[in-house]
Amino acid sequence: MLLKENIPISYLFGQIKTQIFWLTIYSTSVYLMHTFLNFEDVSIPIAIPSILGTIISLLLAFRSNQAYDRWWEARILWGRIVNDSRSFARQVISFIDNSYDESDKSDMKKRMINRQIAWCHSLSQHLRGLNAHKAYKDYVSIEEANGLNNVDHVPLNLMDQHANDLRLLLRLGWINEYQQVKMDETLSKFSDSMGGCERIKNTVFPMTYSVYIHFLVILFVLILPFGLIEFFGVFQIPLVVAISSSFFLIEKMAIHLQDPFENKPSDTPTTAISKTIEKNLKELLKECMENSEIQNSNLPISNKSLAFYIL
Amino acid sequence: MLLKENIPISYLFGQIKTQIFWLTIYSTSVYLMHTFLNFEDVSIPIAIPSILGTIISLLLAFRSNQAYDRWWEARILWGRIVNDSRSFARQVISFIDNSYDESDKSDMKKRMINRQIAWCHSLSQHLRGLNAHKAYKDYVSIEEANGLNNVDHVPLNLMDQHANDLRLLLRLGWINEYQQVKMDETLSKFSDSMGGCERIKNTVFPMTYSVYIHFLVILFVLILPFGLIEFFGVFQIPLVVAISSSFFLIEKMAIHLQDPFENKPSDTPTTAISKTIEKNLKELLKECMENSEIQNSNLPISNKSLAFYIL
Amino acid sequence: MLLKENIPISYLFGQIKTQIFWLTIYSTSVYLMHTFLNFEDVSIPIAIPSILGTIISLLLAFRSNQAYDRWWEARILWGRIVNDSRSFARQVISFIDNSYDESDKSDMKKRMINRQIAWCHSLSQHLRGLNAHKAYKDYVSIEEANGLNNVDHVPLNLMDQHANDLRLLLRLGWINEYQQVKMDETLSKFSDSMGGCERIKNTVFPMTYSVYIHFLVILFVLILPFGLIEFFGVFQIPLVVAISSSFFLIEKMAIHLQDPFENKPSDTPTTAISKTIEKNLKELLKECMENSEIQNSNLPISNKSLAFYIL
Amino acid sequence: MLLKENIPISYLFGQIKTQIFWLTIYSTSVYLMHTFLNFEDVSIPIAIPSILGTIISLLLAFRSNQAYDRWWEARILWGRIVNDSRSFARQVISFIDNSYDESDKSDMKKRMINRQIAWCHSLSQHLRGLNAHKAYKDYVSIEEANGLNNVDHVPLNLMDQHANDLRLLLRLGWINEYQQVKMDETLSKFSDSMGGCERIKNTVFPMTYSVYIHFLVILFVLILPFGLIEFFGVFQIPLVVAISSSFFLIEKMAIHLQDPFENKPSDTPTTAISKTIEKNLKELLKECMENSEIQNSNLPISNKSLAFYIL
Amino acid sequence: MLLKENIPISYLFGQIKTQIFWLTIYSTSVYLMHTFLNFEDVSIPIAIPSILGTIISLLLAFRSNQAYDRWWEARILWGRIVNDSRSFARQVISFIDNSYDESDKSDMKKRMINRQIAWCHSLSQHLRGLNAHKAYKDYVSIEEANGLNNVDHVPLNLMDQHANDLRLLLRLGWINEYQQVKMDETLSKFSDSMGGCERIKNTVFPMTYSVYIHFLVILFVLILPFGLIEFFGVFQIPLVVAISSSFFLIEKMAIHLQDPFENKPSDTPTTAISKTIEKNLKELLKECMENSEIQNSNLPISNKSLAFYIL
Repeated sequence: MLLKENIPISYLFGQIKTQIFWLTIYSTSVYLMHTFLNFEDVSIPIAIPSILGTIISLLLAFRSNQAYDRWWEARILWGRIVNDSRSFARQVISFIDNSYDESDKSDMKKRMINRQIAWCHSLSQHLRGLNAHKAYKDYVSIEEANGLNNVDHVPLNLMDQHANDLRLLLRLGWINEYQQVKMDETLSKFSDSMGGCERIKNTVFPMTYSVYIHFLVILFVLILPFGLIEFFGVFQIPLVVAISSSFFLIEKMAIHLQDPFENKPSDTPTTAISKTIEKNLKELLKECMENSEIQNSNLPISNKSLAFYIL
Repeated sequence: MLLKENIPISYLFGQIKTQIFWLTIYSTSVYLMHTFLNFEDVSIPIAIPSILGTIISLLLAFRSNQAYDRWWEARILWGRIVNDSRSFARQVISFIDNSYDESDKSDMKKRMINRQIAWCHSLSQHLRGLNAHKAYKDYVSIEEANGLNNVDHVPLNLMDQHANDLRLLLRLGWINEYQQVKMDETLSKFSDSMGGCERIKNTVFPMTYSVYIHFLVILFVLILPFGLIEFFGVFQIPLVVAISSSFFLIEKMAIHLQDPFENKPSDTPTTAISKTIEKNLKELLKECMENSEIQNSNLPISNKSLAFYIL
Repeated sequence: MLLKENIPISYLFGQIKTQIFWLTIYSTSVYLMHTFLNFEDVSIPIAIPSILGTIISLLLAFRSNQAYDRWWEARILWGRIVNDSRSFARQVISFIDNSYDESDKSDMKKRMINRQIAWCHSLSQHLRGLNAHKAYKDYVSIEEANGLNNVDHVPLNLMDQHANDLRLLLRLGWINEYQQVKMDETLSKFSDSMGGCERIKNTVFPMTYSVYIHFLVILFVLILPFGLIEFFGVFQIPLVVAISSSFFLIEKMAIHLQDPFENKPSDTPTTAISKTIEKNLKELLKECMENSEIQNSNLPISNKSLAFYIL
Repeated sequence: MLLKENIPISYLFGQIKTQIFWLTIYSTSVYLMHTFLNFEDVSIPIAIPSILGTIISLLLAFRSNQAYDRWWEARILWGRIVNDSRSFARQVISFIDNSYDESDKSDMKKRMINRQIAWCHSLSQHLRGLNAHKAYKDYVSIEEANGLNNVDHVPLNLMDQHANDLRLLLRLGWINEYQQVKMDETLSKFSDSMGGCERIKNTVFPMTYSVYIHFLVILFVLILPFGLIEFFGVFQIPLVVAISSSFFLIEKMAIHLQDPFENKPSDTPTTAISKTIEKNLKELLKECMENSEIQNSNLPISNKSLAFYIL
Repeated sequence: MLLKENIPISYLFGQIKTQIFWLTIYSTSVYLMHTFLNFEDVSIPIAIPSILGTIISLLLAFRSNQAYDRWWEARILWGRIVNDSRSFARQVISFIDNSYDESDKSDMKKRMINRQIAWCHSLSQHLRGLNAHKAYKDYVSIEEANGLNNVDHVPLNLMDQHANDLRLLLRLGWINEYQQVKMDETLSKFSDSMGGCERIKNTVFPMTYSVYIHFLVILFVLILPFGLIEFFGVFQIPLVVAISSSFFLIEKMAIHLQDPFENKPSDTPTTAISKTIEKNLKELLKECMENSEIQNSNLPISNKSLAFYIL
């Protein structure tokens, strides 16, 4: 998760401390060689490293753009999971009407909304390559948890349980045919978001491009001190370290952003988002339970009392 | 809100007045040192700051592009809220038919359209981190307002009230099953827009990138006077201030644009948009009430009179 | 409207004739000062204006990209209005079946299709800030026109009239419930396109960015003659005018493109598009009327004759 | 159509042979003047044309990007026409069930699928500005062809015929109400694709941008020989021709790509795509006819035999 | 397939070994000529190749961006195939209810899910230009396989078989009318993904652009040694090879990425994705079969026992 508070400058430079160390050694050596061994000839025109620098920054800008797009797409997908989870809960609560007959539908509503929370948590674990089986225990019944024990793809099977419940609801007459199809549409949206995350997780960013840029950055770093030494003398050392660090930093950032499900600080905050979903859904459920009690105590509601209720 | 009238040049430069102050001090010092202390050697080839400038402007252009995309997406999301609010009002007015039976449906229509206005205002407050509970008081009934008092996420619960009303409408037979599902689809769109805004609000722009660019800009500013002093002498001072200010300005703009819900002048104008929605929806409601009175006075309308009415 | 024929070179340069005038004066003055007053020292290395030029062209390219995107989005929205108007007319014609009972539905079809034409024309006027009330007079009945007289947002109210007619059609049994919902979906699409255009119209392009670029362009123009004078002498004057004009031109173009509903030649051609829609819809309506007459004369059509008709 | 085989190098350079001719004349003249007339002074620093070159390549890259986007969008729209035509044929074949009653529905299926092929061919002609009336003769009945004779917008009217057939199918009871609405949705997709192509066809790429770039390219070409002559002597001539040709070539390519419906080799291959659609749809129709014969010979099929059939 | 493990540096450079060979020969010759034949005059200012380098890297960056977009779009399309295959399987399992009557619907479910697996495998083969007829043998019945023997476009016909089964299901009453239309929508999504892949496969990247860039890269390589020789002497040879290789590498990468269905290592991993789909779908089917057995043994389930089951 990327929060303003938890990325201090020291953290940023900590990411490339090895590179900073070797850069200092290298540029100091060049300075010493130039000054004490009279290797005057090694100085090269500044035009060469600077052109290389322009090319690299152009390529790095494009690359970090694409890495940013992957990261932002991952965030959008989880944003959709939030939206669709709320919509699904709203549909569960409002489509299943408490008053068709006298049976209490609250347990069913609770079961489906809790399973949706379980789905979010287990997808989060699944994407990070962790054990997804731990994530649903608190939210589904023991029987359902047992049925999932030997399953390979937990979130996919939870979706299937949702679909089974929809069939059951239709058979019981608690939802109508249009509502089943509509809620199945919401399940398809979950399937799309889940598949989108898996696509980002499993598709490696083209290696050729990364290797090529890394290769150019190193070439640039090796040449840079010779281009600056003529004008800056000993001040060449901090300048080389500063400019090279920038390139290494931005390269590092692109590598972090391009894989947003790898347990790193720049990850999509799937755990925090899942908790937000849990909080929102539980609030909706609580409201629904309270209303349900009121309505149940008033049953049966005639058309007239309904008309009164809306005024 | 960004309006042509309220962003004078003075405002723009006011944003970076601290930077302008220090830039003037710094470049004047360099000039004085160079002229009176004969620090002739400090002059460096213009190629070095100019290359740095090209790299920075490339990176800044990309960054302001991404900041602009966030800002524009926020605007698009609120544009969708306008569109969907109008569509929702149209559906409330035209799906609930006044003439199925003799009861008056105007109160229900009014209630739902007013709640939609309340939703817009409270979402606006919610996104800016202000108290969303103040926003709905004028638009919902006292009972409904009391029910929302202890609620954490106001707009989410208002949506849920909409969904409850749709269930009620279906049970009363005032809308049919397809209409319920269709209006629920509109609620899902509101959920998507709301979640999209929250995503932009809660997702910090990658800090590494910002820090890296800021770091390069400062490096550039420190080097610039030494590159210009040879050719411009005392005119170096205004030039340094002008060029550096440009970079600071565009960096500032990117920072403003990337977070469009922070009570700043470059924000998405959520309050103004909510007021436009209120105005539009009230006009539609007024038209509807007038038509309704005419129709109610003509009741019952036979098929024949309807056929006459359309000619 | 941007047509190949109506943008001659003279028009293009006419846009920036003031700038060309002052540029000529300024660069001539520099030349005269340099030659006759022996201000030899004012010459500066070409590197400085050229780097500034690269930075500006990078920023201008990004800016015109974003302006182009706004302009192209406006065009796409009006393209959607064309598509949806045709689809709406097709639905009006084919969903309302002439043969359910013996009443003639042609007047209703005509009324709705004409109202759609009225909507296009009045939206066009509304977006350009002109009086939208003039636009619908020729297309709707006198009663409907009177009802719209005091209305603030004409296109929004016309959409509402469409929705009212759909309710009427459903009540008359001339369309079924799925068809009402489907046609209401088309109305929502109109609402989206209308809202999208209003968003582009009402959202000012970030001023900071524009002001910053304009500021850099002027800085560049002021410096340019001093950079070129050493190599080109008197030829410096046309070169300065040519290069500076390019930057002013492209800046001007971006300003025109970014606001596509302002009664300028580069506007989205909403009037021409509305006329195309009118032509297309009237052709469809004419075909429909002719077919309708044939079918009415054949009434009643038995299943058998229908089967014959399709062979 | 852009195929690997039919764009040899000679073709590419054939596009700009006039420019190559004049470039050779011009750079040779500069060389001769410089060498024999001792116009030594005309040499200018390489920095000037090179900076101009960088600016132009930046603008050209953006412009060819936008031209590429138009070309690619045109291709995507025709890709959608392929997809939707296949989906429409699938719906015609599978929604109209042969066994509701004993009448043979094959002729109706054939008629609609053939009309879809006619639509593709006539849209292709319509977009290229050719006579669209020739395109449908082979695919629709003589009566329908006669009805289309005086029609202005052929593809639009063919869509309307589709919609009329859908109404007929619903009235005959050969499709149900949901199927009509679903197939009408497919017709709306055709309307969207058609309108999208017309939008690209009718919207001129902003002339200002094109004229401005062309103007800069010519300025660059005029200056280039003076920048190179000092270092390359007679070799300046091929270098000038090579570098300038590149700019002219990429500008030419952008002009070709930005208008993909103009009977040029870089066009969207609408004729070839229409033929592919024809081939696919006829294969589906043939399969359907064969199955239909088998099923018809087995009629009536009891539930039991159906159950048997699926095993 | 692009995996981190299988792209070692040696592989990357293996791609351009011919170019590396000739680059070494060429730059060595220039070095030898310069040193031993005293061709001092051949040295040219570094500005010329470096400007050419900047222009090329700008164009290459744009080109690899567009190639990357094609590659990423292909990946997204196959991601959608994964999502929609799972959704389709979920619909097959949950829409077809085992308990409407006593017949066993498991065979039908198995048949449709297996055909979906067959579709994925055969589409994968079809896109790579391989024999698609081999791919479905293991998944469909012998009768269906025979029916497909003479078919040209295998995946298209498999989709048609799906549609036929949906009609059969509707006729048998195993799904309702909304469910048929919804599942047909999923088939349309498959049609869109398939058509999207074929579009990428069949649309050649604009040749002009590629040829132009290749031409500039070669020009750059020919000039580069003359620009570096003055400063680097014999070190010019590795520098020329390194810089030129970078351009060739990135050009190669763009060529690979732009055609993602050509049996190359950078291809979209359609075979692996198809296997994942097979694994997921078989797991869902297995779960369904187990549940089905449990439910069948409990038949008939009264409303009461269902109510019990959900608690």
